[in-house]
Amino acid sequence: MGKIARLIYAASEHSADLLYGCGFAAPDPFIWFETATGERGIIVSALEYSRALTEVHDGVTVYRQDQFVETGHPDAEALILAMAKKNAIKRFVVPESFPLGVAEKLRHHRIKLAVIDGCFFPEREFKVDDEIAPIRDALRLTTLAMYRATAIIGEATVNADNELIWQGRALTSEIVRAEINIRLIKGGGFSDSTIVAGGSDGSQPHNRGAGQLFAGQPIVVDIFPRMADSGYWGDMTRTFVKGQAPDIVKRAFNAVREARDRAKELIKPGAIPAEIHQFALECLKNSGFATGKNEKGHYGFFHGLGHGLGLDIHEAPRLSAANRIPLRGGEVVTVEPGLYYPEWGGVRLEDVVVVTENGCECLTECDTELET
Amino acid sequence: MGKIARLIYAASEHSADLLYGCGFAAPDPFIWFETATGERGIIVSALEYSRALTEVHDGVTVYRQDQFVETGHPDAEALILAMAKKNAIKRFVVPESFPLGVAEKLRHHRIKLAVIDGCFFPEREFKVDDEIAPIRDALRLTTLAMYRATAIIGEATVNADNELIWQGRALTSEIVRAEINIRLIKGGGFSDSTIVAGGSDGSQPHNRGAGQLFAGQPIVVDIFPRMADSGYWGDMTRTFVKGQAPDIVKRAFNAVREARDRAKELIKPGAIPAEIHQFALECLKNSGFATGKNEKGHYGFFHGLGHGLGLDIHEAPRLSAANRIPLRGGEVVTVEPGLYYPEWGGVRLEDVVVVTENGCECLTECDTELET
Repeated sequence: MGKIARLIYAASEHSADLLYGCGFAAPDPFIWFETATGERGIIVSALEYSRALTEVHDGVTVYRQDQFVETGHPDAEALILAMAKKNAIKRFVVPESFPLGVAEKLRHHRIKLAVIDGCFFPEREFKVDDEIAPIRDALRLTTLAMYRATAIIGEATVNADNELIWQGRALTSEIVRAEINIRLIKGGGFSDSTIVAGGSDGSQPHNRGAGQLFAGQPIVVDIFPRMADSGYWGDMTRTFVKGQAPDIVKRAFNAVREARDRAKELIKPGAIPAEIHQFALECLKNSGFATGKNEKGHYGFFHGLGHGLGLDIHEAPRLSAANRIPLRGGEVVTVEPGLYYPEWGGVRLEDVVVVTENGCECLTECDTELET
Repeated sequence: MGKIARLIYAASEHSADLLYGCGFAAPDPFIWFETATGERGIIVSALEYSRALTEVHDGVTVYRQDQFVETGHPDAEALILAMAKKNAIKRFVVPESFPLGVAEKLRHHRIKLAVIDGCFFPEREFKVDDEIAPIRDALRLTTLAMYRATAIIGEATVNADNELIWQGRALTSEIVRAEINIRLIKGGGFSDSTIVAGGSDGSQPHNRGAGQLFAGQPIVVDIFPRMADSGYWGDMTRTFVKGQAPDIVKRAFNAVREARDRAKELIKPGAIPAEIHQFALECLKNSGFATGKNEKGHYGFFHGLGHGLGLDIHEAPRLSAANRIPLRGGEVVTVEPGLYYPEWGGVRLEDVVVVTENGCECLTECDTELET
């Protein structure tokens, strides 16, 4: 029995599977397919044809739309039908994210589609050296951007109202974020969502932060650039306090650092992500930081311990309470415990590790210091 | 008969429909729904709950996942099923992009899904003042970034090999792109894909450009930032030559400028996009620039004349040969004819207009000059 033909229809700038499958980054959706005999191709518009030719992975054939449908502006389904007919394909395996609208039109023409359960390219979860290298590059740049943040907060002075002042003006989350993102651009990366969340903003894990920064309050800085050339992501979080940190923040910082570093020690082939997550949760609890919820929402440590990192910022495997599939080796994951309390803000510390033969190697090379 | 309930499952940072429908920008997928009686809600994880509360549009209720499914990490389908049960919904209208994997699991539980043909929020195509204002802001910033590019190319000197030199080093596409993107960040926008394509790179409309820039060759600069606060996009293209432009490039530039400006004159309620596109194509042909294809691929003007611009960089309506639906008024569209020939490169000029009661208003305020 041969393989089953496979199909993706997506924009590779947003679909890591498609980018992995063909190497060609484009903002608009296009077709990727693999025949039962393993031949791979993409079908792109005239607009993208020449560029696609120069960027695709070896072994992927680039087709122009008019090689399948001669007239004007064919719909995706018309192109897929023509390609399927030419290759005598009646059934495709597609990713979970395959658009329902296209699926219904194909099924109307008796093309069978089977949704794959889980990863479309399972091998994407296990990084080879050619992938670890660009992730290291991304993390190296992330570190430089983090040092930029440290330098700015370090250079800032504090006025009588406890406000941070930098280069003669109020230092805001927006200014620090802009300086971080500029550093990323200079290094060939980009980020639209860098988090610089001071005080209570930091108690919401995905709050990007806004407005004046103050001394004596934690500032969560989470930097996750994508590299323009490779498409791989970096991801790192540190938490800073300008001046003297309140006792509760110091204790939370030490608890999170301990949870992060002890969790890393558990990461190795055979380890179960849910158990590592649970260990971190208990480690924080034993340090005096409970997790729960009240009328204001959740408090404590209420997100997963980490996530896979690669061509997607969040990919398999998750280090979460729900994932009981043992690690195998080759996975690149973040380890990012955090503590969040509306009363004083948040602390999160995030490194990236690759699972090795006997344990894991930390790919993040950046100090972990609270006061600056 | 009441309305039919509606459903989206997507990440609002990538789904303009979802962002339009709720106002809350998030990197991971979440659920948006509207009941048959018009109540709107989103269902988000604990991680996003507090932030969502502060960002959603009026009239959208924010639910925590555990208000529908109490245990741990529920799948999208479990949450949707619980929400449907609570609201006695058995059928949803969903967008074309709805993920097939989730759809199949819902249908397995006898939830009916009907894919909407075309726009999920048809009103998104017709911009109100509150949308035109942030688009103007985005275009204003785009202009500032374009002036940065002009200034750099203007300041550059030319060495004996015809190479551009700036601040003591070779001026590359990458340097100009970085300077543009830095200017965008300083103004509250971001772009990961700014095009600075010199010489033959410019003959591929989506080639971002790489390497040394030269005098006497066209440099296509296409800047399309998204504003961090509003989520609206800007989009503008200019083409420059350092020093003296070759005659063919001058003629192409004049032809494209004429096609752009004359096409704009045709934009008004009742006008048919396909006819405006065709007019631009013929205008270019009459100026001596044929469109066609040969063994190297397409040449001439081989993309659509323009596209809608809003919360998506490419949205309805398209000004393309395929779109015969008359304009109505309120649409914001790009007008961007171009000419591309591998022999000498490309020229593209792009403005943005809003369709008004009697014609259109150009929202782009930026000079159109070739030589710098």
